[in-house]
Amino acid sequence: MAELAKLGHIAFETPDLEESLWFFRDLMGMKVVERDDDTAYLCALRDYEHHTMSLTEGEKGAVDHIGFRAKNPESVEEYADRFEELGRDVWWTEDGHEAGIGDSIMFESESGHRFEIYYEMEKPDIDGEQRSNIPMRRYSPEYANRVYPQRIDHTHVQDGNPEATSRLFEEEFGMGLNEVFKSEDGTTWGWWHATTPLPHDIAVHRLEEDETEFHHIAYHLDHLQDLWDAADILSENNVEIDGGPGKHAITNANYLYVNDPASGIRLELFAGPGYLNFEPDWETVVWQEDIGSESDHQWFGTQYSLGGIPYTDR
Amino acid sequence: MAELAKLGHIAFETPDLEESLWFFRDLMGMKVVERDDDTAYLCALRDYEHHTMSLTEGEKGAVDHIGFRAKNPESVEEYADRFEELGRDVWWTEDGHEAGIGDSIMFESESGHRFEIYYEMEKPDIDGEQRSNIPMRRYSPEYANRVYPQRIDHTHVQDGNPEATSRLFEEEFGMGLNEVFKSEDGTTWGWWHATTPLPHDIAVHRLEEDETEFHHIAYHLDHLQDLWDAADILSENNVEIDGGPGKHAITNANYLYVNDPASGIRLELFAGPGYLNFEPDWETVVWQEDIGSESDHQWFGTQYSLGGIPYTDR
Amino acid sequence: MAELAKLGHIAFETPDLEESLWFFRDLMGMKVVERDDDTAYLCALRDYEHHTMSLTEGEKGAVDHIGFRAKNPESVEEYADRFEELGRDVWWTEDGHEAGIGDSIMFESESGHRFEIYYEMEKPDIDGEQRSNIPMRRYSPEYANRVYPQRIDHTHVQDGNPEATSRLFEEEFGMGLNEVFKSEDGTTWGWWHATTPLPHDIAVHRLEEDETEFHHIAYHLDHLQDLWDAADILSENNVEIDGGPGKHAITNANYLYVNDPASGIRLELFAGPGYLNFEPDWETVVWQEDIGSESDHQWFGTQYSLGGIPYTDR
Amino acid sequence: MAELAKLGHIAFETPDLEESLWFFRDLMGMKVVERDDDTAYLCALRDYEHHTMSLTEGEKGAVDHIGFRAKNPESVEEYADRFEELGRDVWWTEDGHEAGIGDSIMFESESGHRFEIYYEMEKPDIDGEQRSNIPMRRYSPEYANRVYPQRIDHTHVQDGNPEATSRLFEEEFGMGLNEVFKSEDGTTWGWWHATTPLPHDIAVHRLEEDETEFHHIAYHLDHLQDLWDAADILSENNVEIDGGPGKHAITNANYLYVNDPASGIRLELFAGPGYLNFEPDWETVVWQEDIGSESDHQWFGTQYSLGGIPYTDR
Repeated sequence: MAELAKLGHIAFETPDLEESLWFFRDLMGMKVVERDDDTAYLCALRDYEHHTMSLTEGEKGAVDHIGFRAKNPESVEEYADRFEELGRDVWWTEDGHEAGIGDSIMFESESGHRFEIYYEMEKPDIDGEQRSNIPMRRYSPEYANRVYPQRIDHTHVQDGNPEATSRLFEEEFGMGLNEVFKSEDGTTWGWWHATTPLPHDIAVHRLEEDETEFHHIAYHLDHLQDLWDAADILSENNVEIDGGPGKHAITNANYLYVNDPASGIRLELFAGPGYLNFEPDWETVVWQEDIGSESDHQWFGTQYSLGGIPYTDR
Repeated sequence: MAELAKLGHIAFETPDLEESLWFFRDLMGMKVVERDDDTAYLCALRDYEHHTMSLTEGEKGAVDHIGFRAKNPESVEEYADRFEELGRDVWWTEDGHEAGIGDSIMFESESGHRFEIYYEMEKPDIDGEQRSNIPMRRYSPEYANRVYPQRIDHTHVQDGNPEATSRLFEEEFGMGLNEVFKSEDGTTWGWWHATTPLPHDIAVHRLEEDETEFHHIAYHLDHLQDLWDAADILSENNVEIDGGPGKHAITNANYLYVNDPASGIRLELFAGPGYLNFEPDWETVVWQEDIGSESDHQWFGTQYSLGGIPYTDR
Repeated sequence: MAELAKLGHIAFETPDLEESLWFFRDLMGMKVVERDDDTAYLCALRDYEHHTMSLTEGEKGAVDHIGFRAKNPESVEEYADRFEELGRDVWWTEDGHEAGIGDSIMFESESGHRFEIYYEMEKPDIDGEQRSNIPMRRYSPEYANRVYPQRIDHTHVQDGNPEATSRLFEEEFGMGLNEVFKSEDGTTWGWWHATTPLPHDIAVHRLEEDETEFHHIAYHLDHLQDLWDAADILSENNVEIDGGPGKHAITNANYLYVNDPASGIRLELFAGPGYLNFEPDWETVVWQEDIGSESDHQWFGTQYSLGGIPYTDR
Repeated sequence: MAELAKLGHIAFETPDLEESLWFFRDLMGMKVVERDDDTAYLCALRDYEHHTMSLTEGEKGAVDHIGFRAKNPESVEEYADRFEELGRDVWWTEDGHEAGIGDSIMFESESGHRFEIYYEMEKPDIDGEQRSNIPMRRYSPEYANRVYPQRIDHTHVQDGNPEATSRLFEEEFGMGLNEVFKSEDGTTWGWWHATTPLPHDIAVHRLEEDETEFHHIAYHLDHLQDLWDAADILSENNVEIDGGPGKHAITNANYLYVNDPASGIRLELFAGPGYLNFEPDWETVVWQEDIGSESDHQWFGTQYSLGGIPYTDR
């Protein structure tokens, strides 16, 4: 039976690649592993795959696709078959469409979210000097800046038909549903899904109108101190913080939101333990709007803004 | 020449002593060192004096006086003489007016701030089990809760004639002036004074109207983690955070503000290093409103509220 | 196909239950969820199952069994069938043999390690006051002491035929092999196996002689600060630290080892991120004795002692 | 009356300036503020003076002098007079003997420790890009590496007649005596003196033989996390840690010791709060060898090595 291993990478477009690299590489401390004419491939310091983010120069800030890694090569084919049976229009990507990645399938959901599923991805060598002596680490902390993003953590999308998107994650992708958030009138506004023991690999939120947006990509930092250092460095550079630092009630993790000034891509820095769900009989946690000291799902700290970026035109 | 050693203690009134003890002792983790009929004397875990806060049951939330410790017994008398020469109405307190404290003088400033200066204070033994094996520590971390306040840090007052109050601190008390804050039109709004190498022992802010208020008392925590734990525990108890967690630009320290629900006494939890000023030729840092990513003097995190509590009637 | 979800719990014997409870409950901050005449059931603050440790008064410090939770009820039966096919002597436990747990199987490996596999376990309510408002948390941090163990993390056994034990974990239990450690002459001394994305759920080390021992049980703390607080509290109580604080090269996590004075059960406090392995094509990391600044697999900090405790007689 | 403000700087010699700069600047993260032919002047990120360390290429690893800053210019002259009255051979340094520093006196103690007392020192501008927006900070955290030394903290010397050296600090320099350490037979082995509220600005230890050595210079890090990052980076570079990470009983601060490979200068990284002594009536804490979980004055973690470096020949 087809299974996803993890959230793999997200492909973005930005109207100003150099400014986006200033933000993601110079300020936030991500590493550029490969660079084409118009695309840069980036990873965090302990990401084990070739890249977990790509930035392509384009017309506007937008997301091209969200890539999940399958647990084995057969799963990619099984997903292709399953989606086609369900009437989805699935296409196989061509060789070289994306650096480091092998055969993969893509499709668009009803709401217009674009997903890639792949198994093969390179694990390129890191330049000798920056390579940590500890094999599992990849980059030495000596070559990290103080923000110190460690690995891709999760992503968050939103659309006007979130029930269908949540069903896609649960029934077609085979993910669990760790938490949901309901407003006072009983309407569900958010769903947190995971294929790993993380609090979520992907979440979906309801938009009021008939729209589809990408809300944020999150990278994990090891320590609360790293999150605080990030807020400090953003302030030194007069880059406005979009939300936080604070702690979520949902996921129970520490956060800070900030937008790439060039593209509007929202980056969440996610730190601290949250929780790991190893339980096979987890009962979905149902949040009501009136829990916690805030009227929404922030445990403490300020709320992030709601808007997102569109998908690229194809 | 008379010199102050440090901010010593602040005497408060609360309309509900039991609820205030729930807040300061049970939730915030301060220790009750002595208890009279209507007064509780509290300290933080590494405060070296008998108490750094007293809470007396009274009609409303109010502050009675702010006590500074002098560097030696002679300084108390020298301050008395100096203040009287300047025409201040100084009175010597009577024995037993306050547990643990010896001879002291009190006076009210032009704006109505009430100060005590003393030298003698008991250093009572701590109950054997709670006593740390490390002498300088006083309470064992084993008997601390997770908020872990360590020592009194500073206090903050405000009035409509702050220039006079700042002059009192600088010229009569003999403090330094580490930082000032100016609005765009050049008006000074805040003065941070210190007699120790801390960023401030006492600050004064301008009130728009002809009022005099006490703004907050601050206790120092050892680690950013302790500040975060405090925010967490407040949220668990549905006690609203008044500001933060965040980092000040002025003082460069991490903070969280919360009000005692019974009395309205505002408590600042102050953490992390800020800076220590050992320089004898420190040039006062002048802040302009437009520095930093915020329009005011918060480096990041939310602003606290402006109102304070009055002084007790005498 | 049968799959394990996680390391579930370990059942210990101690010659002095009260002293062991002083250590695990009062000093280390674990919670007692149920208490029979001669057995106490304990969990960490965010453990989702009824208990992750039991302590039974007996003749000596010893381990009775190591329990793994299966991913579903069918897996328990499938494991029973598989083990019997391989000639193992498997027995089904009787109802009530262990509080909170349903049907389960037990068996002893060739080396004498005793394992339990179960699926059903209670998730009892926590006493209202201590219950966190955040559902995934279970205990409020307000009712935690400063050591703050959060969840069971892993265990470590050792015997004279570790190749067989490692094969049991990999081939019969279906675990991955994240890391191995080799001495200079090429002999493998340690194997780190996982069924979850943790660096390991169970490890096995070679003993020089024909012996079988239980080395330690590890609980995870959220923050490095918590590990440091633990070392502090142990020092306040004159309980000797067995190793650390330090950082492992293998697993890349922060650690401290300390033994329960009554039973000799070695507790590892494990903190900080280490790494999470979500990669389906992980290549086992092979450590050579000469990597790192230490001659063994400690990255920095002191080594723990080698001896363990036996299994109970049955 | 003459008073010292603070420990100011220490002038060292090293047999290999480039290797020492690799250690102090590249690995440990200190900043080079000025560079002559054979001398580099360094500071930590929040040091307010021109430099707090100088490294001059010479024959061997050695210390030239330990500089204290006086509270005012008159104090320098008063100290000169006082020392001469006591029969000390005091000399005024010549202009330009040391970058950034004005008139100063030097003398050697009976044991051969060489001290400088000065008041005037430059506060040079930091290169625009690296300058923090927060004036009190000096260097932006963006231009810090992960070790993040913040300010000079204290120094430690040792000789065969420590009673005389301690008397010099207390009676001639006018420092307080915060802590002493006694062995079981009642002999005092260490004295911790301070002119600031820090646990110590300078300490002296007894040497068994008739020798005089410089033991270490300490820089303060803001957070325990920074100390841990330092240990990590040292391990990545195969630089052996000389002691720690751990926590002292005396001073109650977190520490790590490491030696510059070129010169043997021992650097202590000192983190976390320890304590601040604002009390004018502090009673010297007397440690007996049998306090704590260790037989000496480490609270937990490993002991540093005992040897030091000599003074330069003059």
